[in-house]
Amino acid sequence: MILESKLPFKYLIGIVKYELIIVLLVGIITHFGAIRFTEFLPEMPLTIPAFLGTSISVLLSFKMNQSYDRWWEARKVWGAIANDSRSFVIQLQSFLSSDHTDIIKKVSYRQIAWCYSLGRTLRGSLNSIENLDHLITETDQGQISKHNNYNLAILQLTAADIKELRSNNAIDMHGHIHLQETIIRMTDSMGGAERISKTVFPSSYRLILHFIIYLFVVTLAISLKGTNNIFVLPLLLLISVGFFSIEKIAYHLQDPFRNLPSDIPVTDIAKTIELNIRQLLSEEITRVESKVNDYFIM
Amino acid sequence: MILESKLPFKYLIGIVKYELIIVLLVGIITHFGAIRFTEFLPEMPLTIPAFLGTSISVLLSFKMNQSYDRWWEARKVWGAIANDSRSFVIQLQSFLSSDHTDIIKKVSYRQIAWCYSLGRTLRGSLNSIENLDHLITETDQGQISKHNNYNLAILQLTAADIKELRSNNAIDMHGHIHLQETIIRMTDSMGGAERISKTVFPSSYRLILHFIIYLFVVTLAISLKGTNNIFVLPLLLLISVGFFSIEKIAYHLQDPFRNLPSDIPVTDIAKTIELNIRQLLSEEITRVESKVNDYFIM
Amino acid sequence: MILESKLPFKYLIGIVKYELIIVLLVGIITHFGAIRFTEFLPEMPLTIPAFLGTSISVLLSFKMNQSYDRWWEARKVWGAIANDSRSFVIQLQSFLSSDHTDIIKKVSYRQIAWCYSLGRTLRGSLNSIENLDHLITETDQGQISKHNNYNLAILQLTAADIKELRSNNAIDMHGHIHLQETIIRMTDSMGGAERISKTVFPSSYRLILHFIIYLFVVTLAISLKGTNNIFVLPLLLLISVGFFSIEKIAYHLQDPFRNLPSDIPVTDIAKTIELNIRQLLSEEITRVESKVNDYFIM
Amino acid sequence: MILESKLPFKYLIGIVKYELIIVLLVGIITHFGAIRFTEFLPEMPLTIPAFLGTSISVLLSFKMNQSYDRWWEARKVWGAIANDSRSFVIQLQSFLSSDHTDIIKKVSYRQIAWCYSLGRTLRGSLNSIENLDHLITETDQGQISKHNNYNLAILQLTAADIKELRSNNAIDMHGHIHLQETIIRMTDSMGGAERISKTVFPSSYRLILHFIIYLFVVTLAISLKGTNNIFVLPLLLLISVGFFSIEKIAYHLQDPFRNLPSDIPVTDIAKTIELNIRQLLSEEITRVESKVNDYFIM
Amino acid sequence: MILESKLPFKYLIGIVKYELIIVLLVGIITHFGAIRFTEFLPEMPLTIPAFLGTSISVLLSFKMNQSYDRWWEARKVWGAIANDSRSFVIQLQSFLSSDHTDIIKKVSYRQIAWCYSLGRTLRGSLNSIENLDHLITETDQGQISKHNNYNLAILQLTAADIKELRSNNAIDMHGHIHLQETIIRMTDSMGGAERISKTVFPSSYRLILHFIIYLFVVTLAISLKGTNNIFVLPLLLLISVGFFSIEKIAYHLQDPFRNLPSDIPVTDIAKTIELNIRQLLSEEITRVESKVNDYFIM
Repeated sequence: MILESKLPFKYLIGIVKYELIIVLLVGIITHFGAIRFTEFLPEMPLTIPAFLGTSISVLLSFKMNQSYDRWWEARKVWGAIANDSRSFVIQLQSFLSSDHTDIIKKVSYRQIAWCYSLGRTLRGSLNSIENLDHLITETDQGQISKHNNYNLAILQLTAADIKELRSNNAIDMHGHIHLQETIIRMTDSMGGAERISKTVFPSSYRLILHFIIYLFVVTLAISLKGTNNIFVLPLLLLISVGFFSIEKIAYHLQDPFRNLPSDIPVTDIAKTIELNIRQLLSEEITRVESKVNDYFIM
Repeated sequence: MILESKLPFKYLIGIVKYELIIVLLVGIITHFGAIRFTEFLPEMPLTIPAFLGTSISVLLSFKMNQSYDRWWEARKVWGAIANDSRSFVIQLQSFLSSDHTDIIKKVSYRQIAWCYSLGRTLRGSLNSIENLDHLITETDQGQISKHNNYNLAILQLTAADIKELRSNNAIDMHGHIHLQETIIRMTDSMGGAERISKTVFPSSYRLILHFIIYLFVVTLAISLKGTNNIFVLPLLLLISVGFFSIEKIAYHLQDPFRNLPSDIPVTDIAKTIELNIRQLLSEEITRVESKVNDYFIM
Repeated sequence: MILESKLPFKYLIGIVKYELIIVLLVGIITHFGAIRFTEFLPEMPLTIPAFLGTSISVLLSFKMNQSYDRWWEARKVWGAIANDSRSFVIQLQSFLSSDHTDIIKKVSYRQIAWCYSLGRTLRGSLNSIENLDHLITETDQGQISKHNNYNLAILQLTAADIKELRSNNAIDMHGHIHLQETIIRMTDSMGGAERISKTVFPSSYRLILHFIIYLFVVTLAISLKGTNNIFVLPLLLLISVGFFSIEKIAYHLQDPFRNLPSDIPVTDIAKTIELNIRQLLSEEITRVESKVNDYFIM
Repeated sequence: MILESKLPFKYLIGIVKYELIIVLLVGIITHFGAIRFTEFLPEMPLTIPAFLGTSISVLLSFKMNQSYDRWWEARKVWGAIANDSRSFVIQLQSFLSSDHTDIIKKVSYRQIAWCYSLGRTLRGSLNSIENLDHLITETDQGQISKHNNYNLAILQLTAADIKELRSNNAIDMHGHIHLQETIIRMTDSMGGAERISKTVFPSSYRLILHFIIYLFVVTLAISLKGTNNIFVLPLLLLISVGFFSIEKIAYHLQDPFRNLPSDIPVTDIAKTIELNIRQLLSEEITRVESKVNDYFIM
Repeated sequence: MILESKLPFKYLIGIVKYELIIVLLVGIITHFGAIRFTEFLPEMPLTIPAFLGTSISVLLSFKMNQSYDRWWEARKVWGAIANDSRSFVIQLQSFLSSDHTDIIKKVSYRQIAWCYSLGRTLRGSLNSIENLDHLITETDQGQISKHNNYNLAILQLTAADIKELRSNNAIDMHGHIHLQETIIRMTDSMGGAERISKTVFPSSYRLILHFIIYLFVVTLAISLKGTNNIFVLPLLLLISVGFFSIEKIAYHLQDPFRNLPSDIPVTDIAKTIELNIRQLLSEEITRVESKVNDYFIM
């Protein structure tokens, strides 16, 4: 998550440095080329780069919009994961008598593990249940590792536990269905996160946008060829840095799980879920243990 | 909440005063610098600041849009909190016989406390259940204070009370599930408010926007260097005040719980919920007690 | 509701007449002042008002968008009220045996009253159940008038009636819950309408928009000072009338219950609901009674 | 529904022909008037019509957006009608034993009739159940015709049939509620379609848009008065045809049930529903009977 | 699905090649015609194509927006199909005892077949259950082929199997309804995909957009007639390629099931569903079998 204090201008220059080098080269070539071959080159009226610039801002605005929506949708999916995980524990406690604290604990711990594992899978981890031994039993891990989709396997195990509780008459049919509905919602959230993570935003749009920005740079450089001084290139660079930065911000927002500063803090959310669930289970976790800014990143 | 009568122009100038001072300095330096070094400076065609200005309005419009959506989403979440709180009391009254007025009252009061506490937490209070002794019992407060997330703890207590009613056969399984579903919805609303409160809007976008506005100011000042008179600086300031004010309005809307004039009136909503719930419990609250404009801020 | 035939140009001029008078004054002062003090005034290039004009259209477009969404949301809420009211009666008839036509009628009539009362409350009526004696019994009215929020009180009475039907075994638990869910949906619709009605759109945005439009008028008037003839002022007025009218339309749409021509026809919808419900109750209402254009304003 | 092959340029000219005649007249008067009275008329800089043109595109874009959303919402409502109608038959078959094929058929046929009738009502038919004798019994028709809202009456009859099945213990309480929920969803879809059909889009916006387009035409014609040749009028007409056509497309999309080429194909959808439902009832309808392009217009 | 590496510039030129040839011809004719008949032709100020260009970007932005929303909606529908298919298998396992593994397998396999068949139908296949013998029994295939809509027929068969399980008391009423609700959601997803696939985006909008782009090309070519050199035509082509490419991208996104590089990868999603479901059924599918990039395309 981008924190406000951590975004120096340097960072922004950093993310668009390749584009700026190209702009600089294109600017130098076009500008000095234009002065040299001034008789062959078109008299480029400034109106052309100007309307291109306006068009770029409109097209960027569309892209920013879609990217933000994707990012916010990803955030909502993780919000639902947090909500349903906490509700699930409260539901278990509501429908099971006090004889079943062990199974409640087991299922709740597995639920915490699911949150960590899903976060890791989205970030590309191949063995997403590694180092979760304190949360998932070895038997469970054996079952899970037979699957390609570990997170789905975890939910199947939970559904099986609920079924057994039903068989033992620890819950009745209605409690069974009620808990099953929460599992369905969690399957949906998992699928939603996977969908956002794996669906590529049409990259051709991005290509065209870059193309139009370069076209803008070239036409602007040619337009300003009469202005033979040291300020043309900085101007080209400054305007380009604005356009390219917005494009890059949008590009990064599109992929909200890719370990970038702007992504969804899935690990922090999972940690908060763990803290909340452990306290719902009446475990004593002193406030000191959790850092203040982890308080409730939701 | 911004009331229409309370927004003098002074307020707007106030929120953008630092930006205006910078614009003034930039304007003075650029403009008089430009006149002095007129032979070295580019002949800046006015077309460049003009298209930058149009682009700024497009990019501002996107930002305003997202910020407003966030603010409205926050408002809807609090609307859902009000609706579910009131429905919850009606549901309790529907499913419990008249022998249980005490427990209905206890749970309803705790529900009111939850609304106040959630509002305070969102505004940064560390001890959000302070001074709610008339709404939450001391035992409850003891339980709650073991948690980091007080509001979640309150919902857990309510779920536990419902469970006990089920154990005593005061409600049957279906009533239990029906009430539990309302608690799930309240957990979702709580999570939604936390999400909006804690997720930072990508601040790099803001940085770029400010950068482009200053670029606009500089290029406009240079463009107008031929116009050597006292009206250039006011013009720069007036246009800048428009852009920066819209940016600031958007910025404030993004964080709808931060004690700003434009934030969601969570305390007033909680007060209305209290009034409504107390009257649902047939308490006599004379109309005079509540101020007219608190009537139903929903 | 604005009907197409009822919107002569005069109406539009009417809603922006104060703004036009100011524009006229500003135009006269600026324009003739500009001609008089032509040597002191900046040579205002037309590019500046032009880009301001484009920016205004972008910012207006955002505002129109939000206002329309608000208005359409209000419309949907009232659509849900109509749907749920009709469904509620069908549900009552489905779950209650023919021995209970009296209570069905009583609850259905109260439901009609709720629609009228909610509409009146949204329009600012203080005693929203006035003149509804044929729809609500006197006992009910006594109960309702103890509340600040009459509409919530009506729903509570309906919930109490359903509970009594359950106590008498006229419906079983599942029917009880099913009907209760419709009451929850109606509480949500009521809360939604209250939310839209009572939440002020950030008025600072409006202020800025007006400010930029006046800035546009002043800069345009100065720009055209060279054009010393009688057509400058009409041009200023005609362009301003366009901008201010759109702003006013947006402003009116924002508040969809304020007795303006563009508001939601809550009374007409309530009348249609009454007609539909009475016919569902097999009352004979001849078609003539209801005007044709009331047929189904939904 | 507009099919791609059926939209010759002639069609577009057709829908904006009145506007074009006015543009032509305005253009001729303004242009030749401008040349004649050239000394009295303002020197209209081209910048003014240019920024008006850009503003028009922004305002048109907003309108197109809202109109499209309305149209797509209407399409979704009819999609829900198709989905729920088919689901309803599958549900009836699931919850009723094979002894009840007659009642399943009767209710399913009535459901088909409801789809046709709703489509006709939306298109303005006063007697929407005409010629549906093969789908609704005469007794039913008698009941329905006592109502103003035929479609609501049909749903009431279906709800009454379900209730009777419950009374005869053909279904239990849970099946009853489950089927009732589908009827509620159908009531909602019906209300949604009525809402879109009967709510007028604020027509004042349209008026202003037309006004600004004409203002654009007049200022453009005056601007080009220096260009005394035969190409000015065609240019005016060509640009106007673009703007007015988009406005007309938006206008037609707003009213998705008005028998225009762009409306929702409600009759075709109803036919597909009929085909699907009859096949779900195991009626033999050979593939030849239904035209290929009716296959599944959903 | 467009993968990032597979989009060379050549691809983009390819999709707009006809438009570019027309632009080239129009450009040559207009430009050289304009030079030749320079005295007859209007002095076209560059402002006119410039504002047309800005307008085009606004109108394109709207179109891109709607097309993207359609595409993303289609993607969400397929996400729901994946989620519900997997949940359905977990639900079957939860509500049926271990005596029913055969029927669970049969229904689960049919569910996989439904995913493949729906994908094929959307891509225009007439016999969508071909080569699915290992997933659907011959008896089932006989039943299905009596229908026009194979996918609806498959769901009806599944509903019938669930009903039989109920008759045999393998599940109780509540389990029956719970499973039936998942079938209803799948009917809705199916209907949603059909709706997006079969509803034509108003093609008149596209026609107008093309018309305005050509108008832009012609006016720009005339404007630049003074610039008599070899750079005018490339400039026309480069700007046009930008506009037409964005329009084409939008056009392709609109129809997300048409076997284009940008469509929804329905076959890949169906394969992932098959893999997931088979592993939920504890079939041993070694990880090697499934390609890495099929891991979880959701």
